Formats: sequence, structure tokens, C-alpha cells
Amino acid sequence: MTSSSASATEIPVIDPSTIVPRLAELIVGFGANVQPGQTVAVGAEFGKEKLVREITGAAYRRGAKFVDVTYIDPWIKRQRVLHADPETLDQYPSWYGEKMLALGEQRCARIALTGSTEPHLLDDLDSTLVGREQSAPRKESMQVVNDRLTNWSAVPCPTPSWAQLVFPELPVEEALAKLWQQLAWICRLDSDDPIAAWGERMAQLERASNALGEHRFDALHFTGPGTDLTVGLLPSSHFVFAAFSTADGIPHMPNVPSEEVFTSPDPLRVDGVVRATKPLFTNGSLIEDLEVEFSGGKVVRIDASKNADALRALVARDEGAARLGEVALVDGQGRVGATDTIYFDTLLDENAASHIALGAAYSFTVDDDDKAKVNTSQIHVDFMIGSDDVTVAGLSRDGAEVPVLVGGSWRI
Amino acid sequence: MTSSSASATEIPVIDPSTIVPRLAELIVGFGANVQPGQTVAVGAEFGKEKLVREITGAAYRRGAKFVDVTYIDPWIKRQRVLHADPETLDQYPSWYGEKMLALGEQRCARIALTGSTEPHLLDDLDSTLVGREQSAPRKESMQVVNDRLTNWSAVPCPTPSWAQLVFPELPVEEALAKLWQQLAWICRLDSDDPIAAWGERMAQLERASNALGEHRFDALHFTGPGTDLTVGLLPSSHFVFAAFSTADGIPHMPNVPSEEVFTSPDPLRVDGVVRATKPLFTNGSLIEDLEVEFSGGKVVRIDASKNADALRALVARDEGAARLGEVALVDGQGRVGATDTIYFDTLLDENAASHIALGAAYSFTVDDDDKAKVNTSQIHVDFMIGSDDVTVAGLSRDGAEVPVLVGGSWRI
Repeated sequence: MTSSSASATEIPVIDPSTIVPRLAELIVGFGANVQPGQTVAVGAEFGKEKLVREITGAAYRRGAKFVDVTYIDPWIKRQRVLHADPETLDQYPSWYGEKMLALGEQRCARIALTGSTEPHLLDDLDSTLVGREQSAPRKESMQVVNDRLTNWSAVPCPTPSWAQLVFPELPVEEALAKLWQQLAWICRLDSDDPIAAWGERMAQLERASNALGEHRFDALHFTGPGTDLTVGLLPSSHFVFAAFSTADGIPHMPNVPSEEVFTSPDPLRVDGVVRATKPLFTNGSLIEDLEVEFSGGKVVRIDASKNADALRALVARDEGAARLGEVALVDGQGRVGATDTIYFDTLLDENAASHIALGAAYSFTVDDDDKAKVNTSQIHVDFMIGSDDVTVAGLSRDGAEVPVLVGGSWRI
Repeated sequence: MTSSSASATEIPVIDPSTIVPRLAELIVGFGANVQPGQTVAVGAEFGKEKLVREITGAAYRRGAKFVDVTYIDPWIKRQRVLHADPETLDQYPSWYGEKMLALGEQRCARIALTGSTEPHLLDDLDSTLVGREQSAPRKESMQVVNDRLTNWSAVPCPTPSWAQLVFPELPVEEALAKLWQQLAWICRLDSDDPIAAWGERMAQLERASNALGEHRFDALHFTGPGTDLTVGLLPSSHFVFAAFSTADGIPHMPNVPSEEVFTSPDPLRVDGVVRATKPLFTNGSLIEDLEVEFSGGKVVRIDASKNADALRALVARDEGAARLGEVALVDGQGRVGATDTIYFDTLLDENAASHIALGAAYSFTVDDDDKAKVNTSQIHVDFMIGSDDVTVAGLSRDGAEVPVLVGGSWRI
């Protein structure tokens, strides 16, 4: 599943003892940009205590009023899928959504750590049930994100099991050390000033986003092995990147790392076939060799060599789950792609390649006139469709096809 | 700190592999008595995952709709005391209390696991700050308990660090195994039918509670080494025991184990001096050789050989924190006392000996006429004042002194 080709970039060694505290400072001081007096919600799976505690200390040192840590135990989800009434699997307590809305109303900061602690834990279960199980308040989360009420950031945190999934050929300790080294480099912790390094990368993404904005394409056209997909755009679809700001003007970077420019497509105008260029790990299932066909914006076929049912169950969740909420372009200059590694973690993998997402859109990427047109859903599932072999072209409103991304390089 | 005298009861060996699943069944099926369709909130410190997961499975098998697990990481509290603004240490997010009230409104079940995972973690910190730190919604918890809205239960769960505190002379694995064995025996898991065994013990406590009710004492008088304390009772102070029922009639046993009969005293009529008969472990601090003096119901002096400041800070929290909310009598027939072990866990230690609690009262122990008279506070801190050397007498309304508990045996 993992390749380490000779062409992969040589990564400088970073002092391991500095990585966790420096990553905590980056996520608190820059990613989420925690402000004095703020309450900070931190969410992480088991096995990430070391980074969670460093983040907590860093947040209090910056003047946080309270750090509210939520640990997620994947074994609890396993018990639920095994033993709960299947009819109840998509229900969760009222206070999950209410807390999320309160985080927005009270203008809190939010930090999430990604990466699966137990990636194979649900492999032996009924993937339809796994896909149906839900305990995250996705609707309220999307609302708080779209209304830009919280300064937030998500960052990956390695664990031994996750490292073994990524580097199965290595002993677990070596795998874990290698994953930490790669993550530290991807997060620019090799720089004396990681914040300045991220500023330079953001300037590149800003240039691409401005160029896409000037073209005002009617659609994007992806072509490559097994892929011929046209994704219609809305009149006001803006390509944005990860230099965000809350409604109150607090700048933050919602994903660390982030190498993408993205927008909300027209959920009624997506047609053709697309082949995923990386395995998709979602909701506890690893979906391999995924192929999806769209007609009139809607998914009409899902095939995969493994766990297709898990995605089929997600797509059946609601009306919008079978339509697109995001299209994102990633160039070949980012560090995720340079490691030539599959991470089985969306936050990393989506920054290695262009991708689309089924489900809810980020409505802040369109103007008020188009906000009612973007897709809504309880799900948001990204999957990778880009590679050096996939060409992206823009379709102008006059019918011309303009090369946008070829072999990983911008052509606009 | 721990003694294992020759007189301690011989405990039968229980198959270790059966303890966690049988304890989970006892707490779900009898202690909390989870009903089909209920949401179940489970709270536990780190290190108790094995029992938490078994409880979750058992609850879903009984038809629970959702099991909402909250893990508490004591290192987060340490970060807060170390780095947060001291003025903010008693504040916590609005959604903590709101969730507790929702658990009541929605008639949920609640399960808590006691026992400290890291009992020495805060020893080097300022005990005044440790005492000021608060993150549990105590007011809302007391309200939900007093209104009897949830069927709930608390049970201890051993961890390696806790076991080492209890049995410092043993290697950690042996200490942990011994603590599990003692807990299993205390919880009557040696019986083929632990629920029936608890029924027999509850019948004994019911007899004592009825006898106390018939006497309608005006006060209790504790005398022993360093202790001469009179605790006034309210006209309707009922002595209750752990066979509880919710407002909707769901029976449950809020503490497993429970060996006490208790009531709410008159917070204005407590006078004299009392010496704690066991160390008090509260809010992360171990308070040793505690002596407390009362006048007119109020604490006027707190002394201790260690960490007196932690209790002084708690008692300064609010007006009611310096007055009594509970007085409880424990006979010598319970199994906690029989192990002759100090557990540094209130749920176990309070069932070895008679005790009093500073702070909030359980208002359901008095009639409506007296509900406005019982103590209110954000704190509820039990400490042990009973032993075979402490005699408890009842003071009748006509001034007579009637022996109640002498050498651990009922005299009424």
C-alpha cells in the first residue's frame, strides 16, 4: 500500500524531542491562533495524550480561559456497531450538537487531532453498519464552520498503530519515528520559523487562487487513467485556500498542513467517471480501488475492490450525500506529495493530490446569491482524484478548454 | 499508610478473567439498572478503558440507545493548575452544566468509575490552587440527584498507580491483582448471584434505617479519640440507604458498594471537634491527620499534618462549603471495613466507617418542610470520622442519650 520510490525527497532529520512541543506551539499559536480569554475545545483519539497535554499547556500559557479536552476511544464505536440496535446507529445525544453551537456562540477556539489510532479495529464488522454509525454533530459543525464563528485547526498526530499502517515494512518504533519525522517536515518544523515558512507557501496558493478567480471557469474537467469527469462550478464559486479568518477577524489556518485551493461546485452539474488515485479511509473503513460515476450531479455507481458498501451506506445517508460539496486542486509543490507516502489520513492525503468531496459544501466559498445552491448533507467525505497523470482543465463560459494543472504544475 | 493486620478477613480468590465482565454486568444491570432505549453517560479517568468498554457493551446489549463515554485525563488538570490564570480556575464551560441538566430532562442513566489514576500527580503543586480548580458541574449534578431524574451508579475501578498507593509494599502487578480481588469480594462477585447478595445486605441497612427513623433523634453525638462532636438533625431528617428509585420508579443502587445509612443534618447545629479516622483524598490532594472544629454549624478551624490548605480552599468556595450536608453511619458488618485497608477512594473508604460531608446536602432525605433548611454548596466532601473506637449516640428530644453504634455494632 505504501511506496517509497527513489524519487522521494530526502527529508532532514529533526530533533525528536522538539517535535511535540513545537507542533503544539504551531497549532495553538498559528493554526488555531488561540486568543487570551478563549475557551478551547480539543478533540483527539486515544493514544495522542502527549500532544494533547502539550497543546493544553500551550493554550493556557497564551491565556485560554478553559481547555475542554474530549478523548475518543475507537473501541466504544466498535461496541456500538456490535451490540446496539442498528436502527439507532445514526442517533446521538442532543448535547453533542448543542455544545458545537455553544462553541460558535461563545466564539471559542477548536483544535482537532487527526490520524486513526486503531485503523483495523472495525475491519471485521458489517461495513454497512459501520457506515451508518454516527456520533459527530456534522450538521452543527458545518454551520459553525460556514458562519466562521470559531478559530480552528486540525493537525495529524501519529500513533503506533497508524504508523504501522503507513510503514508496514518497519518495526513499530521505527515506523512511529519515521511518521513523526515526515509530519514534522510537512509541517515545516525544520524551519527556524515555521510560521514564516507557512506564510511563503500561503503566498503561492494565493497566486493560484487569484488566477483561478480571474478565469471564472464554468467547470473543471479532469482526465486521466479511468477518469473523465466534468465538475460544474457556480457563477460565484471562489477558489479559497487555508488562510482563513473568523467573522470577528481572527486569522487562523484550519488545516495544518494545507496545500490546496478549493471551492464549492454546482451539485447539479457533475458528470462522468472518476477513479480514486489513493485508498479512502473513512468512518473506520478502508475503501480501495474506488470508482464513482456521476450523472446530473448525482452518484449513480460506486465500485471498489474493498468496502464499497461502507461508502454506499454513507452516500445513502441523505439527499445531498450523493452529490459533491467540494472540489480542490493541489499542485506538485507541497511537501505531502513530496514524501511519496500514502498516509490513510484525509488531512494529509488530500494535500498530496487534487480531490472532490461528497456531501456538505463550505458555503463561505460562494456569494450570497449562490449560497442556497451549494450542496447540504450530514456527511463530508473527501477522496483523492489527482496525480501527475491526471490533467485538470478549465472550461470557459465560451466553451474553450484551458489547461490548469498538468503533471502537477500550474498552467495558469 | 496501609495496614494488613492479622485480624483482616480471609478473602476467597475469584477468577481474575471473570471480574471485569461480571462487574460490568452488575453495574449496568443492577447498580444503574439501565433500561432499554436509555442514553447512558459513562465517566471515567484514563486507565479504566477495559471496564468502560465492557460497560458500554453490556449497556448496548440491554438496549441502550447511546452510550456517551467521557474520559478524564488528570494531566489536563495539572496543566490547568500550572499554566492557567488563577482567577479562572473555578470557571468551566456552560455546556458542562447543560449536559448534566439534559441527562436529567431526558431521563438518562449515568455510570461513574471512581479511583484515582494518578494519585500523586498534583502533590508538587500549590494546594490552594488545586483546591480552587473546578471542572465538574456540581450544582447541576446535585440538582439532578436530588430531583431523582437519572438512574445512576458509581463503582471503583482499579488502576496500577492507585493499586501502588494502596499496597506500596507489593510489586505493581501484584498490587493491582490484589486490589481487583478485594474489590470483587467487596462487590459480592464471589457470590453466584451478586444481585441477591446485595439484596440481603440492603435488608440489614433497611432495618437500621427503620430503627433510626422510629427514634426521631434530635442530634447524633460522636465520641472517641480526639472527637467530641454533636451533629443536629432536622425534624424530618430520614436515614436512607442505597436502595434508590428515580422519580419515574426505576430502582437503582447509586454506590456499589454501599454499606451506609445517611441523612441531611441541620447545617446550623453542629458543634465540637472531630478527628478524621482515615486520610482524605479529595480534588487531587491527600489530606492527613485532619482535625476540624465546628461552632454553630460552621467550620472554625481546619488542621492537618499535610495539605490542610487544599481543604481550607474548598471550604472557602462558598457559604455552604463550611457547613455539613451529610451525616452517615456505617456498621462493622460491611466488607470494606473487613479488608482493613485504606483505599484513598471515598466511595470505598466511606463505606468502611461513619462519616460526615462538608457542602451540599441530598435534599431528598428530608420532607418538603425542611428542604429549604438543608445545606447548599458547590462542594460535597466526605471524610471519615468513625471507627471501632468511636461511639455514636442519639440525643432524644427529651435530652436522653441513647447508644446507637458501639464498637461497630448497632445498639438500636
